[in-house]
Amino acid sequence: MVNYPHQVSRKRIDTSGKSESRQVNFANRGMTFETAINDSNQYYLAHGKAVIHKKPTPVQIVKVDYPKRSRAKIVEAYFRHASTTDYSGVFKGYYIDFEAKETRQKTAMPMKNFHAHQIEHMEQVLQQRGIAFVLLHFSTLKETYLLPAQALIDFYQIDQGGKSMPIDYIRQKGFEIIMGGFPSLPYLDVVEKKLLGGDNFEK
Amino acid sequence: MVNYPHQVSRKRIDTSGKSESRQVNFANRGMTFETAINDSNQYYLAHGKAVIHKKPTPVQIVKVDYPKRSRAKIVEAYFRHASTTDYSGVFKGYYIDFEAKETRQKTAMPMKNFHAHQIEHMEQVLQQRGIAFVLLHFSTLKETYLLPAQALIDFYQIDQGGKSMPIDYIRQKGFEIIMGGFPSLPYLDVVEKKLLGGDNFEK
Repeated sequence: MVNYPHQVSRKRIDTSGKSESRQVNFANRGMTFETAINDSNQYYLAHGKAVIHKKPTPVQIVKVDYPKRSRAKIVEAYFRHASTTDYSGVFKGYYIDFEAKETRQKTAMPMKNFHAHQIEHMEQVLQQRGIAFVLLHFSTLKETYLLPAQALIDFYQIDQGGKSMPIDYIRQKGFEIIMGGFPSLPYLDVVEKKLLGGDNFEK
Repeated sequence: MVNYPHQVSRKRIDTSGKSESRQVNFANRGMTFETAINDSNQYYLAHGKAVIHKKPTPVQIVKVDYPKRSRAKIVEAYFRHASTTDYSGVFKGYYIDFEAKETRQKTAMPMKNFHAHQIEHMEQVLQQRGIAFVLLHFSTLKETYLLPAQALIDFYQIDQGGKSMPIDYIRQKGFEIIMGGFPSLPYLDVVEKKLLGGDNFEK
């Protein structure tokens, strides 16, 4: 990736989801975006509505110690890039697959949040008739959208690498998730009403 | 778990999948059972037939070092028990979810291979109309079976903890996977012909 000068200053603003999520309260409940998703999945599971889990963080394990009378201890390992999306599961017989991203920006979602292999994975899922999408959280605006994977793929093919997806495009092609009830992020309502309806994957 | 005397000697025989899989050739191609599954999933993916991945090993990360000019290094972490099954994905619109286990025993699969939360997870998947099963490999016999999750759950409820599932039960309720072609473990043939047919989940 080439770093153009104007991107250097931008980097301070759109920090990646992980570091940012620790600082931003979600929906005024003291939750981060990721916590809100996991909390909602827990709610769906407990109510028998869906079985959706976050995949474990992929780690490349290099060295493991086996201390006597103690459990195995990993002493050297590195984070790997995920080859798929973060969340998957089953809802009413449908395969559900999504990635979650957040930004502090008010007008766009930086496309560097999405890796080529994740885009490719979502294409493969759609080919198998799975339900794939991204959850996009604008923490400053306190707005969250479900964007069908096809809209992300379409934009990615036009605007590969480095740039941003305007919030207007997201509002046009995606669906806002209204927060404040239970679960805190009722994204399956949108899946059920919008993606599983007759206008499958198209708004 | 109580260790009865007669189980101590048994432990030498039915070692867990991971240590055993390194030593046993699979289907005379120099593959382990896990390699054969991953290889088959790769084949299915490359041929546009299914999108099924192994989940990353769950690791509890305790301490990470951030050396200057170098990538983050995990210096203390521990293996966690998986709360779900190892493999999941989508095949022709169906949610696929399975666990793979192997044994050197010739007459039974030790039930200690299955944890209560994995059984519970499979029940939840079935309730959401997902396709759930286990792949059972008898390395000494060189036989592999696909056993629908319901048959495992039924057996588990009768025989909780410690004992073994007889191979006769597996042969009666499951389906043998015939090896030797491409992919090396064509388990989706069985899924398509037996689980997605009219006699859904019942033999």
